[in-house]
Amino acid sequence: MDLYVVIVAGGSGKRMGAEIPKQFLELAGRPVLMHTIERFKSFNDAIEIITVLPENQLRFWIDLQKKHSFSILHTLVKGGTNRFFSVRNGLKFVNSPGLVAIHDGVRPFISIDTIKRCFDTAEKLGNAIPAISPTESLRLLTDQGSLPLNRFSVKQIQTPQVFSTGLIKNAYKQDYSQDFTDDATVLEKTGEKINLIEGNRENIKITNPEDLLISAALLATFS
Amino acid sequence: MDLYVVIVAGGSGKRMGAEIPKQFLELAGRPVLMHTIERFKSFNDAIEIITVLPENQLRFWIDLQKKHSFSILHTLVKGGTNRFFSVRNGLKFVNSPGLVAIHDGVRPFISIDTIKRCFDTAEKLGNAIPAISPTESLRLLTDQGSLPLNRFSVKQIQTPQVFSTGLIKNAYKQDYSQDFTDDATVLEKTGEKINLIEGNRENIKITNPEDLLISAALLATFS
Repeated sequence: MDLYVVIVAGGSGKRMGAEIPKQFLELAGRPVLMHTIERFKSFNDAIEIITVLPENQLRFWIDLQKKHSFSILHTLVKGGTNRFFSVRNGLKFVNSPGLVAIHDGVRPFISIDTIKRCFDTAEKLGNAIPAISPTESLRLLTDQGSLPLNRFSVKQIQTPQVFSTGLIKNAYKQDYSQDFTDDATVLEKTGEKINLIEGNRENIKITNPEDLLISAALLATFS
Repeated sequence: MDLYVVIVAGGSGKRMGAEIPKQFLELAGRPVLMHTIERFKSFNDAIEIITVLPENQLRFWIDLQKKHSFSILHTLVKGGTNRFFSVRNGLKFVNSPGLVAIHDGVRPFISIDTIKRCFDTAEKLGNAIPAISPTESLRLLTDQGSLPLNRFSVKQIQTPQVFSTGLIKNAYKQDYSQDFTDDATVLEKTGEKINLIEGNRENIKITNPEDLLISAALLATFS
C-alpha cells in the first residue's frame, strides 16, 4: 500500500500583512513550507510528497529550494482557483491504491504522532480527521443576537486529513460547492461517515501576523 | 464614575503539568499575574484592582510580590469553590456606581485598545464582551456523529467582560447554574442582551503547557 501526502499552500500573503506568501515566510531561517514537508518525510521516508502552489509562485519556490539546498524530492503541482481545485489537481498525481494525507502547507507543527495516528485510523476506517477541543467559551451568532454554544460539543478541525485514496479521489470528482470547507466535508457529501481523532494542540495554522511569533516559540521547543 | 477590574485566577496547576499554578508561572522573569495586573494599571492609573485567588495561594502571592518588589495596589480576595463564586466574592468589593471589568488572571496579553473599547461600549450599552472569529473549520458533536458547523457563525469569547456595576452585581445574586460558563452567561440569565465586540487575537488564555512558550514569544513582541 502506497502512502501519499498532498501539501496545499495557496496563501498570497495579503492576510499576513507581509510581502511574501505565508508559506514562504522564514521560521528559524527557512521557509515554513520546508518545515512542513520535512515533517512528513520524517514520518515515513518512502511517502510520496505532492506540493501544490499557485502558478505564479512555482518559480519562486524552485529558487528558494536552491538557495536553501533543500533536497527532499516532491512533485510540484500548479494550484487551482481555490483550495478545492488545488487539492483536486494534487490528487491527479495519486495513482495507486493506498492512503493519502491532505495537509495545509502552513501547518509546520504537525506532530509525527498525529500523522501516524491519522494514517493508522484511515487504514482501518477509510478516513481520519484530527481535531482538538476549543479552550474558550463559544457563542453562536443568530438573527436574534448571539447565544451560548457548549464548547464541549464543538471540535476545531485540523489537517492532515487522511483518506483511502479511492474514496477521496472519487469524492473530488463532485462539482464544487461553497459548503466544502475542508476535505472531510468533500468526502462527507458522498455519504461517508467522518472519523474524528485527537490532533495536537501546537499544530496551528499560520494565518495572522502574530502566528509567526508563536511559531518561532513552538519551533524552539517542539522540534 | 468609578472603574474596577476583578481579576480572577483559580488555577491549581494540574492542567499545566507544572508544580505551581499557571497564574504564578514566570514569563520574562515575572509571574503571569503581575503582567495581567499591569495591563489594567497601564490602561487607567485610577482603576480599582481586585484580585481573587484560592485561599491556599494568598500567602504565596504576598511573598511573590515582595520577592519581585511588585507595588501595584490591589485588594486581595479569597476565591470560592469555582469561578462563579470567586467572581461573586470579588464583586463584594465593588461598592460604587461605575463599570467593572472581569478578567482572567491568565490572560496577560490583553491589549490596552481592547480594554478601552470594552469600557467604552459597556458605558453606552451596559455590557461589552470581547470575541474573535475561529480560524479553523469547526464540527458539532451530535448523537448521530459530527456535523460541519459554519465557523463564520461562531465566536470565541475572551475577557475582560465589562459591565455596568449595578447590572452585574445584581446578576451575581442568582443561584449558581452549570450553564454559567462566563460572566456574559450570568448576566444574560437576567434578560439582558449581550454585546459582542472585537477582541485581540493574541489575548490567549494560558491553559496548556505550550501556551507558556507561545506567551514568551508574544511578550517579546507585543509589549
